[in-house]
Amino acid sequence: MSLDAVLARLDADLDAATARLFELLRIPSISTDPAFAPDVRRAADWLCADLAGMGFQAAVHDTTGHPMVVGHHDGPGPHLLFYGHYDVQPVDPLSLWDRDPFDPELQETPKGRVIRARGAADDKGQLMTFLEACRAIKAETGTLPCKITVFLEGEEESGSPSLVPYLKAHGDALRADLALICDTGLFAEGVPAIVTQLRGLLGEEMTITGPRIDLHSGMYGGMAINPIRVLTRILGGLHDDQGRVQVPGFYDGVEEISEDLAAQWAGLGFDADGFLGDVGLSVPAGETDRTPLESLWSRPTAEINGIWGGYTGAGFKTVLPSEAHAKVSFRLVAGQDPFKLREAFRAWVTAQLPEDCTIAWKDHGASPASRMDISHPAFAIARASLSQEWPGEAAFIGGGGSIPVAGHFKEILGMDSLLAGFGKDDDAIHSPNEKYDLDSFHRGMRAWARILTGIAES
Amino acid sequence: MSLDAVLARLDADLDAATARLFELLRIPSISTDPAFAPDVRRAADWLCADLAGMGFQAAVHDTTGHPMVVGHHDGPGPHLLFYGHYDVQPVDPLSLWDRDPFDPELQETPKGRVIRARGAADDKGQLMTFLEACRAIKAETGTLPCKITVFLEGEEESGSPSLVPYLKAHGDALRADLALICDTGLFAEGVPAIVTQLRGLLGEEMTITGPRIDLHSGMYGGMAINPIRVLTRILGGLHDDQGRVQVPGFYDGVEEISEDLAAQWAGLGFDADGFLGDVGLSVPAGETDRTPLESLWSRPTAEINGIWGGYTGAGFKTVLPSEAHAKVSFRLVAGQDPFKLREAFRAWVTAQLPEDCTIAWKDHGASPASRMDISHPAFAIARASLSQEWPGEAAFIGGGGSIPVAGHFKEILGMDSLLAGFGKDDDAIHSPNEKYDLDSFHRGMRAWARILTGIAES
Repeated sequence: MSLDAVLARLDADLDAATARLFELLRIPSISTDPAFAPDVRRAADWLCADLAGMGFQAAVHDTTGHPMVVGHHDGPGPHLLFYGHYDVQPVDPLSLWDRDPFDPELQETPKGRVIRARGAADDKGQLMTFLEACRAIKAETGTLPCKITVFLEGEEESGSPSLVPYLKAHGDALRADLALICDTGLFAEGVPAIVTQLRGLLGEEMTITGPRIDLHSGMYGGMAINPIRVLTRILGGLHDDQGRVQVPGFYDGVEEISEDLAAQWAGLGFDADGFLGDVGLSVPAGETDRTPLESLWSRPTAEINGIWGGYTGAGFKTVLPSEAHAKVSFRLVAGQDPFKLREAFRAWVTAQLPEDCTIAWKDHGASPASRMDISHPAFAIARASLSQEWPGEAAFIGGGGSIPVAGHFKEILGMDSLLAGFGKDDDAIHSPNEKYDLDSFHRGMRAWARILTGIAES
Repeated sequence: MSLDAVLARLDADLDAATARLFELLRIPSISTDPAFAPDVRRAADWLCADLAGMGFQAAVHDTTGHPMVVGHHDGPGPHLLFYGHYDVQPVDPLSLWDRDPFDPELQETPKGRVIRARGAADDKGQLMTFLEACRAIKAETGTLPCKITVFLEGEEESGSPSLVPYLKAHGDALRADLALICDTGLFAEGVPAIVTQLRGLLGEEMTITGPRIDLHSGMYGGMAINPIRVLTRILGGLHDDQGRVQVPGFYDGVEEISEDLAAQWAGLGFDADGFLGDVGLSVPAGETDRTPLESLWSRPTAEINGIWGGYTGAGFKTVLPSEAHAKVSFRLVAGQDPFKLREAFRAWVTAQLPEDCTIAWKDHGASPASRMDISHPAFAIARASLSQEWPGEAAFIGGGGSIPVAGHFKEILGMDSLLAGFGKDDDAIHSPNEKYDLDSFHRGMRAWARILTGIAES
């Protein structure tokens, strides 16, 4: 096949591709709000029809939640599983949007043309880059260069409750040589990236109970233990002055990154000042002896994501509450066992409880970190392909967040994932006025065409 | 007048008095929540009408907050100012109430009959003991034995913002020979008490701001400062291992109690195990080198009354919040200057803030501790009167709580206060299922009849 012809077709077809994306963006597929369930299904149907129109054997598969869209297409090359999600975040507060979030518009901005709509970047625009690449290749060559399974989820923004059961039940139909996931971003302006390691996540909720009822601090203050005092005492000791997490054994198994990777990361020229400055900060708050990128990508962290107890309304109430609560999460790196850490954290907290306090725990998930095997030839091909499309050379980077589907593909289907996406830091995903650069949309589809062609020929 | 006839009338009229109290308890006069402002006013109107019906020259006086109810009645004896408050605490969490907090009910319990409702003990039931005593005396004698001014506040549970301005503006109409305050409790089962020293209160609300917006812990965790971490770190250090408050200068000016008072307190046979056991505790949580009664009455304390920040709903959200909040209060003793302590606390917190965090403060009141001159003859009369109504001899005790109005009466009107009240430790004031013993209500009104008669005759 002629890659040049495919790329030329993608260039010529950009307006039509944008129009197709707009159709999908007009469907308010907010997965977390049951009122939008019919719209989520409409988005699934739309994608199923689009895949079928390209010659995929496509179907909408029901789950106990929102449906999965699965399409299969044969091809001579390796079997690739493409993953994206067609559900979107809620739009509140609507008052902060400059226009209807579900009435997409192409807008001129000082930084170039952008597609403005909820879901433009997360993840409808991104998943459509892959579908547009397939469409162009199919139109030019009559087939696809690899065997491709497209797997589109409708619950990513609401915790993916159906994903693991679905993978366990239908793994055979989805298992491939490699997964391609398009839900990440560029490293920097003009510098594409492939995420090769992702932090895991351990989520814990704790309730410390002291007196059996709320007490009046005038009557009991000075005698009765206050569980908020206990909670702040314990969580206030979660980090030492150097930002190191104090749970015993927390760093057991944590490996230093290779010198190669360290050199590559150092070469990325990460603008830590700008990264923090954008959110009103100036001082890195992690371990004091680590670089910013290590803190974000290869070092585990502990964070208090929520805390509450006592009287929190208007005015004042001199209560000694019966209970105090916190939600604590740990970002984990390769080598850390989330289940061992859960035990260690709970034991560390429990050992600090005064005699009169009890604690109850709620488990909010435990997923290990993942590190991809970048010796798979597809990684080098993808890196070269991305480097041809953007001015900067593509980087292998870490990801601070968790993309649970990559972990599930590894655990349940035994597959590594190649994570390439074209979002930008200013896309405002999950926020009002989300956008996706038209340039990301265009280069993204061209990059997938290069990657698929490259993998087929490897 | 015949005291016996008055007491007999109070006994005979108990059902009707209880029905009157129920009317008042049905009005949800929650002062801290603006949504209930019309109900607070309804309670004021109800009391004004009740006073007028007894022959008081009564009026509802507007303030910038909730109104004051003031009633004047002439009489031959000394001028007494009676103070109570008709507002109540919020009722959350409503789910822990066994019935509607504003649908009062007389309930049989193993310890006797109780009036169950928000405000039953704090302070509607208590203030009505005085009004019922006046009603019975008036009915029997056609007048009152002393000149009495009744002064009822509607903001006691929300920091009394209008109290000081009101006292300063209308002091001449309120100034009397002595104030009577009915907002305290028995010392123990069957043992009444007059509170002769009260702790002061300093209330502070703090908001620590880190990043200018909420952040995703996957993207920023390890680099961005989390204000909840800062808050727990600071508040976790509010006490040392011996329970001593760590704000510099906190104990400056705090005096040891006299040997006499120490001996009297030691003789009270305070049952610390029972006091804590009633609320599910067993270990005193105050300064480790102090007796329980010192911890409750003569030592200052610091408490976190509320804390909140980040995601506190169902499930989990890996947010690094922009803000974290706490409400902190200090119980103060004689010798401590609340305004100096406010500055000391704020300075101590501010000095611990990381460079990237800012703090905003909200002031929730500052009142000094108070100590009464118990050589005033009314104290001996009241002690004898209470001792006649209850099995045990009445005690002069300290109060752990703050009754700021007593301090304001002293400072602004130059009056001492005689604090006698009939609440019990298990009344659950400020908590779900608040109650007031019918026995307290009944003996309380009889006691006031004795006290008023005694003072008139002295």
